[in-house]
Amino acid sequence: MKSEFKRVLVKKGFSEKMADEAAQLFTETSCDGVYSHGVNRFPRVIEYIDKGYIDVKAVPTKIEGMGAFERWDGNLGLGNLNAKVCMDRAIELAKENTIGCVAIKNTNHWMRGGSYGWQAADAGCIGICWTNTHPNMPAWGGKDRRIGNNPLILSVPREGGHVVVDLAMAQFSYGKIESCKLNNESLPVVGGYDSEGNITRDPAEIEKTWRVLPIGYWKGSGLSILLDLIATVLSGGNSVYKVGQLEGQDAEYQLSQVLIAIDAKKIAGDDFLGKAVNEVLSDIKDSEKVDENKEICYPGERTLNTRKENLEKGIPVNEAIWDKIKSL
Amino acid sequence: MKSEFKRVLVKKGFSEKMADEAAQLFTETSCDGVYSHGVNRFPRVIEYIDKGYIDVKAVPTKIEGMGAFERWDGNLGLGNLNAKVCMDRAIELAKENTIGCVAIKNTNHWMRGGSYGWQAADAGCIGICWTNTHPNMPAWGGKDRRIGNNPLILSVPREGGHVVVDLAMAQFSYGKIESCKLNNESLPVVGGYDSEGNITRDPAEIEKTWRVLPIGYWKGSGLSILLDLIATVLSGGNSVYKVGQLEGQDAEYQLSQVLIAIDAKKIAGDDFLGKAVNEVLSDIKDSEKVDENKEICYPGERTLNTRKENLEKGIPVNEAIWDKIKSL
Repeated sequence: MKSEFKRVLVKKGFSEKMADEAAQLFTETSCDGVYSHGVNRFPRVIEYIDKGYIDVKAVPTKIEGMGAFERWDGNLGLGNLNAKVCMDRAIELAKENTIGCVAIKNTNHWMRGGSYGWQAADAGCIGICWTNTHPNMPAWGGKDRRIGNNPLILSVPREGGHVVVDLAMAQFSYGKIESCKLNNESLPVVGGYDSEGNITRDPAEIEKTWRVLPIGYWKGSGLSILLDLIATVLSGGNSVYKVGQLEGQDAEYQLSQVLIAIDAKKIAGDDFLGKAVNEVLSDIKDSEKVDENKEICYPGERTLNTRKENLEKGIPVNEAIWDKIKSL
Repeated sequence: MKSEFKRVLVKKGFSEKMADEAAQLFTETSCDGVYSHGVNRFPRVIEYIDKGYIDVKAVPTKIEGMGAFERWDGNLGLGNLNAKVCMDRAIELAKENTIGCVAIKNTNHWMRGGSYGWQAADAGCIGICWTNTHPNMPAWGGKDRRIGNNPLILSVPREGGHVVVDLAMAQFSYGKIESCKLNNESLPVVGGYDSEGNITRDPAEIEKTWRVLPIGYWKGSGLSILLDLIATVLSGGNSVYKVGQLEGQDAEYQLSQVLIAIDAKKIAGDDFLGKAVNEVLSDIKDSEKVDENKEICYPGERTLNTRKENLEKGIPVNEAIWDKIKSL
């Protein structure tokens, strides 16, 4: 899979090195089971390159350094490469100052945000990062889409598998709503509103209004607004509002992101880190189960299981999408 | 109100200065409309002092400084005073390093977490802080309470009123569920499970199981776990699991907290800060409304409105609670 991604990226004008790194990220994301932001997303990334939203020659550059904080410009380069460079820099800043923060403006969709949480944890750091997005969700009390789903990632390093959450502020992604509709399934819990303003699990009804539900109703709406404001203020880049006003309004580009690393190993030491984290996870896994046959997973555990399975058996692909990629 | 709080705190053994500062925090919280963590909570704080969970002579002490990060010990002092000292220190660290982070262990309930968000914003800083709690919510897939509702606060400074969210990871607090039950009202949206395992808005049914719902279902469960792990690892203090094992298991004490400040004014400058934030808020307030008669408020706006009203008309109190405080 990686060599196929790399072939296409080199053909589109990336340097050998950048194509290799980007292909690695797309492949790891797919291997971890986040197909929507790996293999399935790859053709759209190529489309964005062709439309000029993504600059294959661009690398992120530091604008200003202020102590443990730095501001970077993404120069409209590929989002996952940009975010990886900036998390690497946040980790370096954390090694110097115990905590490090990089804000990047003018960057592009980072694909799977969780990647940068795993990256921080691999370096022994706690990772805290988020991105803003295109306006894709109504604010609480509003009907039209003016706030972003602004995914937030938190990670803690752990021997045997990091603990990682990677979650958007919308209860369901557009992709999930569409796939439930195609399969004639209800959403597992309420996910938005129908045309009468009633809350519903019916994906076809939600598609009529695109009034998707923020996590925790008013709570996720507020979180989304603050994540956007902080990313905007720290990076000096576009807010969700500004992203919605760019040319080619359906496209999502020129985003703002924040990447924070905190040197957990230095602060806590390996012993306390391992013990404190493991006793919390054991306690949670020992819960009285809702369904006796369903194991309670800690955040990140399913990813690790999928990774192992896909490394053994190969990464499953949708034939049509894979054919499309081979034809690029 | 403040002088009454102060009188009681001095009687319980606080120094004049500490009693004054704590009384100020309890009063501001009440004035801002968060009665549950101000005037209504005050008698329980006194009870915790009498039981020895809160030490009136204790002040927080720095354990270790590492660059832009410091570890503090709360020494079981009053939670709101401890948190205020630590956010002040995080702000000082932010003035030196642009970003500052303080983790505190062995502290007590900080009352209204939003206070420390407003405090950071008053100093021109972005505030990011959270606390862990007693185990009061089941993890996703579990039935018994093993994770905390771990409130998270985010704030951005703004002329004319800061933007602040202060939200627990449970959709509703115990207090809200109880008050809806007393008033024979349904919860505004689903908030937990009944004894048959169905999701419900009925507060009496939820009280039977205490299976309260995390915000965003599995998402809030994951966020809660990560907030707890990060607070535990950074502070070297108790996790939610450990808090649940302390003597007097119904009491909530010896908590772990994280307070992060980022110098927004230095990073963004007053002009960009004001403009970028205000254009986002204006856009949100201009949304097509769900209810024509209901204004869409930005996070923090309602607090400011309540504060103005209460400063004009006085802070409303429950007579029974106020009588109880006067008798202390």
